[in-house]
Amino acid sequence: MQLGLVGLGKMGFNMRERLSAAGHDVVGYDRDQNISDVASLAELVDKLRAPRLVWSMVPHGDPTRQTVETLRDLLEPGDLIIEGGNSRFTDDRSNAELLAEKGVKYVDVGVSGGVWGAQNGYALMAGGDAADVEHAMPIFDALRPDGPREKGFAHAGPVGAGHYAKMVHNGIEYGLMQAYAEGFELLAASDVVTDVPATIKAWSEGTVVRSWLLDLLVRALEEDPGLERLQGYVTDSGEGRWTIEEAINNAVPTPAMTAALFARFSSRQEDSPAMKAVAALRNQFGGHAVHPSENELED
Amino acid sequence: MQLGLVGLGKMGFNMRERLSAAGHDVVGYDRDQNISDVASLAELVDKLRAPRLVWSMVPHGDPTRQTVETLRDLLEPGDLIIEGGNSRFTDDRSNAELLAEKGVKYVDVGVSGGVWGAQNGYALMAGGDAADVEHAMPIFDALRPDGPREKGFAHAGPVGAGHYAKMVHNGIEYGLMQAYAEGFELLAASDVVTDVPATIKAWSEGTVVRSWLLDLLVRALEEDPGLERLQGYVTDSGEGRWTIEEAINNAVPTPAMTAALFARFSSRQEDSPAMKAVAALRNQFGGHAVHPSENELED
Amino acid sequence: MQLGLVGLGKMGFNMRERLSAAGHDVVGYDRDQNISDVASLAELVDKLRAPRLVWSMVPHGDPTRQTVETLRDLLEPGDLIIEGGNSRFTDDRSNAELLAEKGVKYVDVGVSGGVWGAQNGYALMAGGDAADVEHAMPIFDALRPDGPREKGFAHAGPVGAGHYAKMVHNGIEYGLMQAYAEGFELLAASDVVTDVPATIKAWSEGTVVRSWLLDLLVRALEEDPGLERLQGYVTDSGEGRWTIEEAINNAVPTPAMTAALFARFSSRQEDSPAMKAVAALRNQFGGHAVHPSENELED
Amino acid sequence: MQLGLVGLGKMGFNMRERLSAAGHDVVGYDRDQNISDVASLAELVDKLRAPRLVWSMVPHGDPTRQTVETLRDLLEPGDLIIEGGNSRFTDDRSNAELLAEKGVKYVDVGVSGGVWGAQNGYALMAGGDAADVEHAMPIFDALRPDGPREKGFAHAGPVGAGHYAKMVHNGIEYGLMQAYAEGFELLAASDVVTDVPATIKAWSEGTVVRSWLLDLLVRALEEDPGLERLQGYVTDSGEGRWTIEEAINNAVPTPAMTAALFARFSSRQEDSPAMKAVAALRNQFGGHAVHPSENELED
Repeated sequence: MQLGLVGLGKMGFNMRERLSAAGHDVVGYDRDQNISDVASLAELVDKLRAPRLVWSMVPHGDPTRQTVETLRDLLEPGDLIIEGGNSRFTDDRSNAELLAEKGVKYVDVGVSGGVWGAQNGYALMAGGDAADVEHAMPIFDALRPDGPREKGFAHAGPVGAGHYAKMVHNGIEYGLMQAYAEGFELLAASDVVTDVPATIKAWSEGTVVRSWLLDLLVRALEEDPGLERLQGYVTDSGEGRWTIEEAINNAVPTPAMTAALFARFSSRQEDSPAMKAVAALRNQFGGHAVHPSENELED
Repeated sequence: MQLGLVGLGKMGFNMRERLSAAGHDVVGYDRDQNISDVASLAELVDKLRAPRLVWSMVPHGDPTRQTVETLRDLLEPGDLIIEGGNSRFTDDRSNAELLAEKGVKYVDVGVSGGVWGAQNGYALMAGGDAADVEHAMPIFDALRPDGPREKGFAHAGPVGAGHYAKMVHNGIEYGLMQAYAEGFELLAASDVVTDVPATIKAWSEGTVVRSWLLDLLVRALEEDPGLERLQGYVTDSGEGRWTIEEAINNAVPTPAMTAALFARFSSRQEDSPAMKAVAALRNQFGGHAVHPSENELED
Repeated sequence: MQLGLVGLGKMGFNMRERLSAAGHDVVGYDRDQNISDVASLAELVDKLRAPRLVWSMVPHGDPTRQTVETLRDLLEPGDLIIEGGNSRFTDDRSNAELLAEKGVKYVDVGVSGGVWGAQNGYALMAGGDAADVEHAMPIFDALRPDGPREKGFAHAGPVGAGHYAKMVHNGIEYGLMQAYAEGFELLAASDVVTDVPATIKAWSEGTVVRSWLLDLLVRALEEDPGLERLQGYVTDSGEGRWTIEEAINNAVPTPAMTAALFARFSSRQEDSPAMKAVAALRNQFGGHAVHPSENELED
Repeated sequence: MQLGLVGLGKMGFNMRERLSAAGHDVVGYDRDQNISDVASLAELVDKLRAPRLVWSMVPHGDPTRQTVETLRDLLEPGDLIIEGGNSRFTDDRSNAELLAEKGVKYVDVGVSGGVWGAQNGYALMAGGDAADVEHAMPIFDALRPDGPREKGFAHAGPVGAGHYAKMVHNGIEYGLMQAYAEGFELLAASDVVTDVPATIKAWSEGTVVRSWLLDLLVRALEEDPGLERLQGYVTDSGEGRWTIEEAINNAVPTPAMTAALFARFSSRQEDSPAMKAVAALRNQFGGHAVHPSENELED
């Protein structure tokens, strides 16, 4: 099958490899001309036979929006755009509306698998019309893990559902990582278990907590048993935040996911303004000593 | 190897099967004479050759303590008790002290695997002296999953470390389940994803969240797609509580694990006294309507 | 001072009383003609001398927006609208832009005090240009509590800052109520303290936790010592949700406020889908008993 | 009334002042002979007329236990010890049993008020037999705030109930401070409200959130508007931890109080081991960049 692929970064590059290996004809475009197959999106569209299939794999927000807008002007009725970046589900709806004016179809796909996807395959969650999803199925089949289709692919619902599913997936991911991380910290903090990496490795088989994330934690601890080579500084890319906002919109209590998000926020603070306020209050009512800031010490 | 096994309940019964299948000579004791191989603990001890190996697999707390005390009177110096129940790690220390007076050795083992352990093997975390752990290794090898020993067994540290490791394992388990559960609820509550079971099943391979627990959630949703056949009522058996208490003792923030524990507490409340207080306060300051209790409605 | 007041509900009605008592000339409008001084907003505007001052006190969202749009068409350059409802701060910005096209000025005011405000005065947080805020000061002085102005009034910042301040105020309020409520539940659940209402009343003076909310809790417990006459069912009106969304937007960890919001969500659920998932998982891996739903029992 | 007072630290010293001012005859003992009225506990007991009343106000744990044990040997049947330190309620029970063997009575009193108690009076929560509590009432009346007795004193229940009430009081206190602190941080982090101290001061009267703690926050912000002179480093003294442990023992969900405790734990960590684990996991699955530790940078 012929596919235009816009965005050949960490994810797109690997996906092209996997698709080509499966026999698909991928025409790739990237702003970096060194890795791009074509000079422009116009040339990309030119090279594709109608009805065209174009997969967009660029950062969410403005870059995705601009790609969609540019492609709208270049594509023809009956062509199909698959948005595989990490767009917010609400963006999908406005993208689809924009394209529908021109008769161009739209499917959004949440893609999970990270750097391992090239090798293991990517799990895919698609949103859109059934016919459009079905049309692109050979591409999905090449990208997803080997084995039964339903264990690595789902048609989650209408436009937006693919990214919604991926968003919730990532919210869960936050919670899972936080749970392992808290357990690791407790083992490390107490002096009862003397071999923490071996203990966690023993959970690899037979336990209730066995998982791919656990396997990765085992790997990380093999490389750096006390995790002393890195800081406890964790960024967040948007999907965790959107998950909690959606939870609030739907009045769904999500304390574990939210704890994970807040722990990331805290990890990036040099000092906590809230805890300054608590320290100040305790000093006011109880005369409890405060720790002067470094600022203050220098005065 | 010859082993006395005290307690032939759901766990002990399956373990006897697995040990026997591996060629070990298991003498089992249970209060239920229909399944017991011997009439009493005294007879069990009689049947074992010194140095004896006795595995206790009875409920934690008083039953385990009584078993240890009875065995102390029956066993001889050099014999070894393995406590494989869900004891608190602090109980292990007092058990070991009690037995040390008599020269009887003690190893505690956290056992994970539930009803699937008979088939998949149990992950084991042992606490005690290295020589004692080594002595019982053929038993551990028969119980643990096939494959490399370190992926299903660890000598976690001195006496107590085995159950400490299992306690933290269970704390993590609480957090993992809570994360999946919150994600499930959010998918179900919003109307964006129209096929929730298929979406969750698509996470089985390739994703960051793939795990054995996810596989079990897929199974549960295949049996009952909306989970309509059961109540959201969840008990807790102790290890989750102990984990949080240990986190507090060690000043380790564990918000996700704690959220999971509190969610279970809430699940068992017909009505929340705290939320009654909030409702009462809002009524006091804002004249906000309250919902009368059923009690009140009947008056 | 002459003031048009749009919206004579629970809040607006009381405010008119307080303003009139202070000697201001209030022309009130309400959809309910029985309590309205004028037949229409047009008549209200007619009755006011330029530069006019109109206070809008209608529900946030569409009603406020419609009031602003209607007044825009009726008012003249130099007139000033004060939006005192519970608008989101982002709405203030678009309201102000809409009015600026016509030369009409805008100040947003967060109003705290509930049903007690008529008697105690309302705390006010204003957002807008200094000159506009200053112009309306006689009205603010009449509404705020007696005593020094700065203990019941602040010019918090530009347009939107008044409602932002009120939003955060309400987020704090959620957290405070949750803290008292959790303490109440713990006292009630344990059997150590035998006189819970008397114990809480003893906190009224001298303690670190004394507050107006505590006084209200004492009142509520005097009326209903076990809070048995009401359900633990708590609604939420928007500002708590917005606070958490803003916390997320600003990467500020707000676990206590969020806990309060989630507790309200839970209070309104008959059964928790998340806890159904946890129960299903425990049944899958451990064979733990589940509670069948009432649905199921009827089958 | 005559009273022996053991422990003349920050709290005991101020209490002696307040009791003396009320006309009571206080004989004070402290290890520091410069402030002690007597050379030893034996001399203190000698100076008191039977039935003696001795108030212990020393740190909880070993110091309190030693004081109780020493006094048991010195006191006579019918004498009464009031334990006013911050003991855990379970300690009260063993203290009372120890003294009962000798016929000495015991009342535990939770004391709130901090350094302001000397001036405002202390709120008191007493646990013990009604007759014993009644006997010491003149002392309680002198210590508590002016006004009606029930607004600063409660007989909360049997031995232990006084400290239990104080423990829950402090748990609530943690939650309240956390709520104000989160609100402060959010105001400070966003750029919408431009005058944060003035905004918070405006909440002093008329609002739902007005409280003594808020007044103290206003004071703190007047002294240091951005709280730049101190670190967000907050210790905890035990009662917050005990509250959560009791909540767990009673299956009471206390997410806001627990959030406050965990925020304190985090405030004292230079780096978070849990967040190191999350960073390591993200690096493993997504190739996300990690921040090398300072350690590592030096290598």
